[in-house]
Amino acid sequence: MQKIRPGTLAALLLGSILTPALPLSAAPARSDNVREAALRDDVAWSFTEGLTTEVGPRPAGTSQEARARDWAVARLKSLGFSNVRAEPYTMPVWVRGEDEAQIVAPFPQRLVLAALGNSGSTSDKGIEGEVVYFPSIAELEAAPEASLRGKIAFVSHGMKATQDGSSYGYFGAARRQGPSIASKKGAIAILIRSIGTDHHRISHTGVQMWADGVKPIPAAALSVPDAEQLERVIARGQPVKLRLKLTSRMLKDQPSGNVIAEIAGSDPAAGIIVAACHLDSWDQGTGAIDDASGCGIAAAAALQVAKAGQPRRTIRVLMAGAEEVGGDGARAYFKAHGTEKHALALESDFGADRIWRVDFKLPQGHEALATRISDALAPLGVGTSKQEAGGGADIGPLVKAGVPVIDLQQDGTRYFDIHHTPDDTLDKVDPAQLRQNVAAWAVTFDIAANASETLGIN
Amino acid sequence: MQKIRPGTLAALLLGSILTPALPLSAAPARSDNVREAALRDDVAWSFTEGLTTEVGPRPAGTSQEARARDWAVARLKSLGFSNVRAEPYTMPVWVRGEDEAQIVAPFPQRLVLAALGNSGSTSDKGIEGEVVYFPSIAELEAAPEASLRGKIAFVSHGMKATQDGSSYGYFGAARRQGPSIASKKGAIAILIRSIGTDHHRISHTGVQMWADGVKPIPAAALSVPDAEQLERVIARGQPVKLRLKLTSRMLKDQPSGNVIAEIAGSDPAAGIIVAACHLDSWDQGTGAIDDASGCGIAAAAALQVAKAGQPRRTIRVLMAGAEEVGGDGARAYFKAHGTEKHALALESDFGADRIWRVDFKLPQGHEALATRISDALAPLGVGTSKQEAGGGADIGPLVKAGVPVIDLQQDGTRYFDIHHTPDDTLDKVDPAQLRQNVAAWAVTFDIAANASETLGIN
Repeated sequence: MQKIRPGTLAALLLGSILTPALPLSAAPARSDNVREAALRDDVAWSFTEGLTTEVGPRPAGTSQEARARDWAVARLKSLGFSNVRAEPYTMPVWVRGEDEAQIVAPFPQRLVLAALGNSGSTSDKGIEGEVVYFPSIAELEAAPEASLRGKIAFVSHGMKATQDGSSYGYFGAARRQGPSIASKKGAIAILIRSIGTDHHRISHTGVQMWADGVKPIPAAALSVPDAEQLERVIARGQPVKLRLKLTSRMLKDQPSGNVIAEIAGSDPAAGIIVAACHLDSWDQGTGAIDDASGCGIAAAAALQVAKAGQPRRTIRVLMAGAEEVGGDGARAYFKAHGTEKHALALESDFGADRIWRVDFKLPQGHEALATRISDALAPLGVGTSKQEAGGGADIGPLVKAGVPVIDLQQDGTRYFDIHHTPDDTLDKVDPAQLRQNVAAWAVTFDIAANASETLGIN
Repeated sequence: MQKIRPGTLAALLLGSILTPALPLSAAPARSDNVREAALRDDVAWSFTEGLTTEVGPRPAGTSQEARARDWAVARLKSLGFSNVRAEPYTMPVWVRGEDEAQIVAPFPQRLVLAALGNSGSTSDKGIEGEVVYFPSIAELEAAPEASLRGKIAFVSHGMKATQDGSSYGYFGAARRQGPSIASKKGAIAILIRSIGTDHHRISHTGVQMWADGVKPIPAAALSVPDAEQLERVIARGQPVKLRLKLTSRMLKDQPSGNVIAEIAGSDPAAGIIVAACHLDSWDQGTGAIDDASGCGIAAAAALQVAKAGQPRRTIRVLMAGAEEVGGDGARAYFKAHGTEKHALALESDFGADRIWRVDFKLPQGHEALATRISDALAPLGVGTSKQEAGGGADIGPLVKAGVPVIDLQQDGTRYFDIHHTPDDTLDKVDPAQLRQNVAAWAVTFDIAANASETLGIN
């Protein structure tokens, strides 16, 4: 049954006269209870701690990711979820070998770097070449055709942190497009400054896809201090020669899979709320903020709703495989389940720092539902934006198909200090902010799962 | 000639009636000018940037340390120092090979670690063993004799930061004594939690010396997040098996050396002021805070004094070799120069953060000199302590022989975040705090070098 906070109803009736909307009744509504209970949640922490400790790194399509699926299925069953299962698929897998780099001349010294996903491989002997420096991806693009023949391109575009993570789009181009551009112009390898905002000797890896017809070349990210060091060396004006050993290999048809678990709703016709995160991680860290914590938040919040009583709609937690390397899990989910009635989709994949804003993309006429959710989030310090929700990679196919979506935006100020590095470990998760996430998710679930409105497609 | 600030003299004459001591004359004294000019110094930054960029890491007894000597000799000559020379000696050298560790069971995953100086070497195949956990060095010491036979000891004593760095003594015991204790009790290897205060996947190496008659075993430091991860794995209660590959080798009679440069004083009978730092660094970083910046500070401060006019006493900058691995440079200096008249010794080897306190160890009757120096440091935010100065490793033999010493204590709050890690790079040096160091050193030099008091031994 739908439960509406009396205060919210009053606010709706009175329009904007009452500011802010305060409960008129002394008895707390169900969602208030859900939110307050979720602020004492321990499930999200326990899930994050367990997955990162007992499995550790879990690259897509590897035996570690398979262990993560087994671990998640067992944990979700023991937490009381229903319909818990792994849904397998196969995929090609890029496997890191050794990552080594040295300045050979004029100032011999090692550099810290990590190959990017789908990087070409050097031989075990490595390669040597002269560096050509580009302060940004635009300068690389502007370089004449074939001008990099036999050279190593170096793109050092310094990323700046933003609360909403929007700078990832702009600065991330060096990783996503840089390798293909450099290869087309004849480079024998490309180094980029890590797409990251820290100053530690840890490199930010990440996936890049070769453009059609482009020959893969070794492609790697220097740590930010190493990129700055290489810039200083280059600024001396002498030719700079590097030696690179970046070995890796590609495997075909490796097993990967999604894990699904449900809080069954009382009204199957009302549609499913999908709460997505991803089980896979990059290989360098233990994937605590990317994305064990996201899975912990989604699972814990669904359980907080169940504790308050069976919701109208089913809440389905989708712990996707292979998000980091291109979204094979998301595509497999949509292929298997795209025709089911999906009322709403959400995704948690931006760390574990606090939710600061909520964005909506709901069908016309659902403003009241959005307001009820915003009002329930306000006590957590969450503001409402006018920006349209867009979802993330794991719900991408659903959103594209028209499923309504809500984004509970996390504070990303320090996210790119850690993202895709060895430093993505449990100690970076703040238990208090993690609980605030669970509370925000739980009230959002609770209101949306019990809403009387018609929602979703199919 | 001695120059005394009028304000300081007045304060001495009036005792403690005037608080604080203010200059009674409008014309600034020489030392005031030296201090203010030093706050605009660029030499310390340029030295630190140059050494870390153009040489990079410079482990004792290696070709990199030799390049550092050549670099320093050339730079000090071009800066206008006199009597610039390298003074060679030979020493045994421990050379790092590969550092790899995995948890084999129950939760397979890699761990980040770095061998400690003088660590024993595994074969290229590595070794496997079960872990025995000790929360502190005291628990390791309390373990029964032979109880570690065939096991890998793990001592995880979590260091806390202090402004004065005093916690290094207490927590550092795990590194300095732990390996010998573990070997005596039959361990096949020892891992310690890094002696560090950060939470990054970077390991803090450092030297340890085997006690007499103790068999060297592989000894390494886990990064702090990895030590915490291993603790969590152990806390699950199952036997924990590790595989370690820690290769290294010992070389005999390798070339090392000190570099010496002077600002010649006008009165050779007044004795030399020695300003020490060290040129060598650990192999993982570029030794920016340990100790390129210390050498930059000492050299820049000496030049600031020379710019104000020739001092009475010679200021000799000693850029020692091989500090990190046991102080071979300090012993070689004392052997060559111990009989010369040393008026005073200072050392800069605790990073580049601001000077916050000055400690003295001067002969009886030199309270007025200490007061003049304290007064000149006060405008820089430097307090005077009642703690006796102790010097550091590079002036250790001089201090032991009775040479007066002044410690310009640097803020060490973040020093052990970086110390002996790959993260010891130029970006960790704050140019503004570096200049405050130069200013503190310059006024101290200026007052001590021109003091009319008799100082020193021989």
